Parts: sequence; structure tokens; C-alpha cells
Amino acid sequence: MFDLDRYLKDRAATVERALERAVPEVSGPDARLSDAMRYSLLSGGKRLRPILALAACESVGGAIESAMGLACAVEMIHTYSLIHDDLPCMDNDDFRHGRPTNHKIYGDAMATLAGDALLTDAFKVLARSVSEAVPLELMVATIAELSEAAGSAGMVGGQVIDIQSENQKLSLDELKHLHSKKTGALFRASILGGARLGGASAAEMVSLEAFARAVGLAFQVVDDILDVESTTEKMGKRTQKDDALGKATFPALLGLEESHAFARSLMHTAHSAIAGFGDRAEPLRQIAAFMVERKS
Amino acid sequence: MFDLDRYLKDRAATVERALERAVPEVSGPDARLSDAMRYSLLSGGKRLRPILALAACESVGGAIESAMGLACAVEMIHTYSLIHDDLPCMDNDDFRHGRPTNHKIYGDAMATLAGDALLTDAFKVLARSVSEAVPLELMVATIAELSEAAGSAGMVGGQVIDIQSENQKLSLDELKHLHSKKTGALFRASILGGARLGGASAAEMVSLEAFARAVGLAFQVVDDILDVESTTEKMGKRTQKDDALGKATFPALLGLEESHAFARSLMHTAHSAIAGFGDRAEPLRQIAAFMVERKS
Repeated sequence: MFDLDRYLKDRAATVERALERAVPEVSGPDARLSDAMRYSLLSGGKRLRPILALAACESVGGAIESAMGLACAVEMIHTYSLIHDDLPCMDNDDFRHGRPTNHKIYGDAMATLAGDALLTDAFKVLARSVSEAVPLELMVATIAELSEAAGSAGMVGGQVIDIQSENQKLSLDELKHLHSKKTGALFRASILGGARLGGASAAEMVSLEAFARAVGLAFQVVDDILDVESTTEKMGKRTQKDDALGKATFPALLGLEESHAFARSLMHTAHSAIAGFGDRAEPLRQIAAFMVERKS
Repeated sequence: MFDLDRYLKDRAATVERALERAVPEVSGPDARLSDAMRYSLLSGGKRLRPILALAACESVGGAIESAMGLACAVEMIHTYSLIHDDLPCMDNDDFRHGRPTNHKIYGDAMATLAGDALLTDAFKVLARSVSEAVPLELMVATIAELSEAAGSAGMVGGQVIDIQSENQKLSLDELKHLHSKKTGALFRASILGGARLGGASAAEMVSLEAFARAVGLAFQVVDDILDVESTTEKMGKRTQKDDALGKATFPALLGLEESHAFARSLMHTAHSAIAGFGDRAEPLRQIAAFMVERKS
């Protein structure tokens, strides 16, 4: 019987150890930069993206070690994006994961630089994770895909659309497009990259692309729902801020009940996409369900 | 007879065309991001780093096309670093290359994101520039080297030391260490990456490493000299600001005359390092001389 709770804890701990090695403590004049990077990187969090990368690798029969560099890289990129999003010139948030945000501790300049360094070092960690198990063309393709997902065509582009959409009425399609870039792209790169490094076939990649699109969107729908339904205490960050900022959300467009139904239907889409994968994909399936059923 | 002036103009034009393709104009909701990226990326400038990458490639008998992706990537990374350095929370500069800085035109949030996107997209442009001419292990090594040079161990780390050193007395060795990271690392990655992609031998890489260290440091010494000797008009950016910010500089530590002599001696070191390279390295030699003799 697969124990998701235990699986998530084990994997989060494995990822934590790998991140500790990827961004080590240093002494001397560089100490403060690595402190600032580690403050946000090692602050807990669910580690969903790296865990998905490893689970996708497993789901096609790969050894998770092949995807550990990618797992660290996607978490480092996710962390950089949070640090920069929280800056006063962006969302100006004071709390994240229940702790003061990076710039509240280290100042705006250092927070900007800590984000820059995490983003840049992510590619180093990935490129240096080459091993005999992974053909080099797969590594180069994974690097290209990750940078595309994180850059102007992906996450950053999505963040720009998000800022420009404040107080604008978005259609459901426009909202989906926004989140396909802002949060979806990195989920896709995590899952597809993990699978590719694990030796996925072309057919498996097609199935996992559909899986990744569905879970990425589901994650965001649930995030919007939680912003309405949950409390700051539970989430460890400011809630009900979407409404305050005049941001388009799935609950605002569809209503809460319909948003819950949409998230569940996306989970079914995700499950169908990898129905033929057998037992090896059980973690992926259960993580997808967890992403929809989570309460924080 | 080698005509450096013409060479630099031709190469700058070639790089400009490649950058135009690397960061194309787009329409729709992403237009403003690409506008902001292109505003700073395509604002002229000497294109020294990409030209060095191409010249290093040539100097070992490579075709410059092999290093064109790297050339774009290093210029994109250089540009991102300028955009972020100019932000109000960092150096708070209003002018760069004689034009308003990115955040003066697009606002702090968009400037932060334009920088993030240029940095991220740089790795995409590099990773997508694979060709049959370049073995994949050289591409992966070049990506790893570039991200290391730009990240916490390189440029970003140097910028942090620079900020922390304001109003501090630095020794000559500390100042060299700062600049070895802040500006030197990207020069080294440009030159070594270009050479590697051009098929350099191990011995050639050793010589070019010595060359790159010397020209990178010489560039900074001359930059410090120009900050004292030149005018805002000539430089297209604020001058005499090192002194105002209480920054350690080579002229402040060594005096102006001694700084000039130090720059010249570094140029000789650079020339000696590649003395055995023959005619193919003539562009590299003359660029090194230009970097020391430039007036802006």
C-alpha cells in the first residue's frame, strides 16, 4: 500500500539534503549572499516541483539520481521567483512560509541579488549533474527547456501579464493562458525534464505533457481557492490578497463551487493521461490528487 | 594590415543582428516585456564580451558561428547585470549609454523582470545553439562555466562584495579579488567559452585563461581611471561616482600614473600569454590593446 504522506516527507528530506549541497554555507566576504540564498531556499515548503521531477523520472523507470540536479534547479528557480515577486517594487509582501520575506531580513539590494544568484546557479547545478546514465543531448535539451520555461516565454512572461492584468477583466481563456506561463511552465519543465532524464520514450513524453498541463493548472485553481477560503495563519502568507489587488482568479470567474469542480476534473484529466503507466506512476497519481486536495 | 576599427564595427554589427534574433520583437500581452528587454539589449555599446568570445573562437581555428550563441548569451547576461545594478535599490542610476536607464522608462518592477528574463533566456539561447560542429560535452561544459561565472561564485558574488565594501578600505589584493568576480568572471567565460566551442586544445585553454585574467583586470583598471578622468558626456553614464560612493578604486589605491602603468603591464601579460598563437590571434591581441587604450 503506497503511503503518500511518508513518500512526500522522505522525498522532501532527500531534496533538502541535495539543496544543502547545491547551495552550501560559505565563509568570508561571500557569507552574506549565501546566507540570503539559503534563508529562502531552505525554509521548508512542500518541494512539490522537485518531488514531481523525481516522481516523473521514476514513472518511466529512471533512477531518481538522474533527475536530482534538475530537482534542485527547479526549486532554486521557484525560490528566486518568490524572492523577486515579494520585493517592494513587485507584490511587496512581508511574509512567506510564515517567516519574514527575504528583503525584510536582508534588504532589497541583497534580496534582488540572492534571487539573481539562485536563478543563475540553478543552471550550474543542472549542467554539472551530468552522469554516464544520461546521454548529453538529453541534458542539453533539458537545460534549454528549463530556461525557456523560466524566461520571457514562460514564468517571467506570465508574471508580466499578471501585473498588467491587475484591475482588468480577464476571460477564462486569458486566465488559463496567464497561469500556463506563470506557474504552469515550471511544473511542465519539472515533470518533462525529470522524465526525459529518466529515459522516457516519445510516447511517454506526450502523455506526461498532458499530465503536466493538467496538474499545473489544477495547482493554480486550488491556489486561488485557498486564497479565498484559507487564513494567513494556515498559509504562512497573506491571503485574500488577490481580491485586494483586483486580480482575476478562478473563484471570481467561476464561483467557488465550480472552481472546486474544475480542479477535480483537471485531476481526472491528469490521471487519464498516465493511466497506462502502471505501478511506477503511482506516486505521480497520488501527488496529483494531493495537489488538488491540499488545504495549504 | 589588420584594421581594428573596421573589425570591431563589423563584429558589433554581426552580434547586433544575432541579438535581434535572440530576443525578437513580439506582439500581444508579451510586447512590453520584450520591449523592455530590447531597450537595454539593443542600445549599442561596444559588445566587447561577445566580440571577445568570437575572437577567441577564431584564435584557435574555430568558425565564429560555433560561438554565436555564447556571444549572445554573454551580452544578455552583461545587460541584465547593468539593468539590475542601475535599480533604485542598488546603484540608483538614471543614465546608461547616454539614455535613461531601464527602470526610468519601464518602472522598477518591469526592469527587474526584464533583467530576470535576459538572464534566463541567455541559457536558452546558448543551449539551443548546439550544432554538429560542436561536441555536446563542450556545450554542457560551457553552460556550466557560464552559469558559474555569472552566479554566486562570480558576478553576483562580486557585486555583493562591492556593495559591502563601500566606505571600507580595501587592499590591492582585495580589490583585485572583487573585480576578478564582478567583471573578470564574465570576460573569462566569454573568452574560454568561445575558445572551447572553437575546438581549443588543453594547452590553448591554459594560455587563454592567463590572457583572459589579464584583460579582464585591465578592463576594470581602465574603467576606474576613466571614472576619474572622463566626463559624463563622453561615457554616457555618471562619472566620478566611485569617489562619491566611497568605493575603493585602482587610482585611489595606486594613484593615476601607477594605474596607467598597471593597465599597460596587464596588456603585456595578455600579449605574452598568446604569443605562440600566430596570426589567427591578431584580433584578440589588438582588442586587448584597445581595452587598455580606450577613452570611453
